[in-house]
Amino acid sequence: MADQDDDRTLRTAIERLRVKPGSDLVLSKRATDDDFGMTKDEALERLAETRSRIDVLQQRLYAESRRSVLLVVQAMDAAGKDGTIRNVLTGLNPAGIRVASFKAPAGPEAQHDYLWRVHQVCPSRGEIVVFNRSHYEDVLVVRVKSFVPEDVWRRRYGHIRHFEELLGDEGTTVVKVFLHVSKDEQARRFQERLDDPEKRWKFRAGDLDDRALWSEFQSAYEDAINETSTADAPWYVVPADSNSRRNMAVGEILRATLERLDPQIPEPEAGLDGVKVV
Amino acid sequence: MADQDDDRTLRTAIERLRVKPGSDLVLSKRATDDDFGMTKDEALERLAETRSRIDVLQQRLYAESRRSVLLVVQAMDAAGKDGTIRNVLTGLNPAGIRVASFKAPAGPEAQHDYLWRVHQVCPSRGEIVVFNRSHYEDVLVVRVKSFVPEDVWRRRYGHIRHFEELLGDEGTTVVKVFLHVSKDEQARRFQERLDDPEKRWKFRAGDLDDRALWSEFQSAYEDAINETSTADAPWYVVPADSNSRRNMAVGEILRATLERLDPQIPEPEAGLDGVKVV
Repeated sequence: MADQDDDRTLRTAIERLRVKPGSDLVLSKRATDDDFGMTKDEALERLAETRSRIDVLQQRLYAESRRSVLLVVQAMDAAGKDGTIRNVLTGLNPAGIRVASFKAPAGPEAQHDYLWRVHQVCPSRGEIVVFNRSHYEDVLVVRVKSFVPEDVWRRRYGHIRHFEELLGDEGTTVVKVFLHVSKDEQARRFQERLDDPEKRWKFRAGDLDDRALWSEFQSAYEDAINETSTADAPWYVVPADSNSRRNMAVGEILRATLERLDPQIPEPEAGLDGVKVV
Repeated sequence: MADQDDDRTLRTAIERLRVKPGSDLVLSKRATDDDFGMTKDEALERLAETRSRIDVLQQRLYAESRRSVLLVVQAMDAAGKDGTIRNVLTGLNPAGIRVASFKAPAGPEAQHDYLWRVHQVCPSRGEIVVFNRSHYEDVLVVRVKSFVPEDVWRRRYGHIRHFEELLGDEGTTVVKVFLHVSKDEQARRFQERLDDPEKRWKFRAGDLDDRALWSEFQSAYEDAINETSTADAPWYVVPADSNSRRNMAVGEILRATLERLDPQIPEPEAGLDGVKVV
């Protein structure tokens, strides 16, 4: 992928994954299996290049210590949240990267508004933070399973837009990816986990209950994405049936985000010219 | 380093870096330039192997989600804290690794006891956390610069032993490394930072003030290490004049810690035999 035209074509394809504000996303019209015209090996090679580039940009972001990046990762089960995070971020300096994973709120988390625990683990200056699940669960599973009434979860879209606007205004670039897997591919992956003794511990009988609510979850995702994909905190719908292309695409999105920020190594202290250490 | 004898010899050499309780460490008698009988390339190759092994053990620790590891990294300036952390941890899954960096306490941090902010960022179950500086600064720089009176910092050795005992009892294995650099090597590295326009931003004139207090810092390190190197939360004095051997040695220490823990993939849920996903 040294070719400039290929690079431009790929960037355009990735940019098409973005959900433009007001565009009324319909998930069933979005591909789950786009290969971006790449073989698996080409996708792996491209991701390796992208990681090197992200590494350089991350070091600058960390040295600059002025701005930060928040990447939100959401998906149905088995779409590959863990695998994506591992493959895109492995190789970066752990001092500048942090992954925050959200489970069902418990203890003090459950005694506060749903953004309280999220706010606490937002990136500090210079950091890239990845959310494995996020505050979006509070308009997804919470809605589908009726944990709160509709008038409560409906107001949350506004909270979330405002919260992410605050983050953006104060120096944190927010970007969000939905890993879009097909229902058939999910079945295949669940069955693989069940049938492989090394992987079975990852499977919970409850995973099948969520699968039974597939269309309700898809609707909840559509609404959440349509309501919160803003110019400054966009959602990308990433085809996730192929692991290699999914990882490649998420790498591209993170890289493009960092390139737009264009972080700079800070100026040295004044008065250091000619200093000799004794 | 496929040879079993070489492996045993190295493990023994690494184990000799440990400060046994009651052994009365004298830093000037500890090497800063031990090469462990390895060339630079051999050290790099060994670290690459070690990282792969740590990766496997980390995945098990994360899957097990029952215990955790805290690696404390302390050193004089330019001994290579950042470089060590980067080189030992890069390549691991960022979802199971976290680096906590401590600067001078400010705001609410300064309004609590010195272990308050430290406790908050200790590892959760399944995590490996690395402290870049730590609560030890509260018996090091705080002592050398007389930020608190002697009767205050002297009591802290006991607090720290008890705090680390709590962590150990509750499932967190604590291991601590002091990156031991010579005063000459520090001078060489400072000068290099000053002379290289790409690195100069890392240098602060205040770094020279700390260098002027070299022997006071060495004494403070000796006392802190002697007072807190316990059987369950040991200190290792790692020769740090060579970056490649330093990184290799810290990798060995982390690997050996994880091997002793021997984390296990959990058992799958019962009742999943023969389940078919539809």
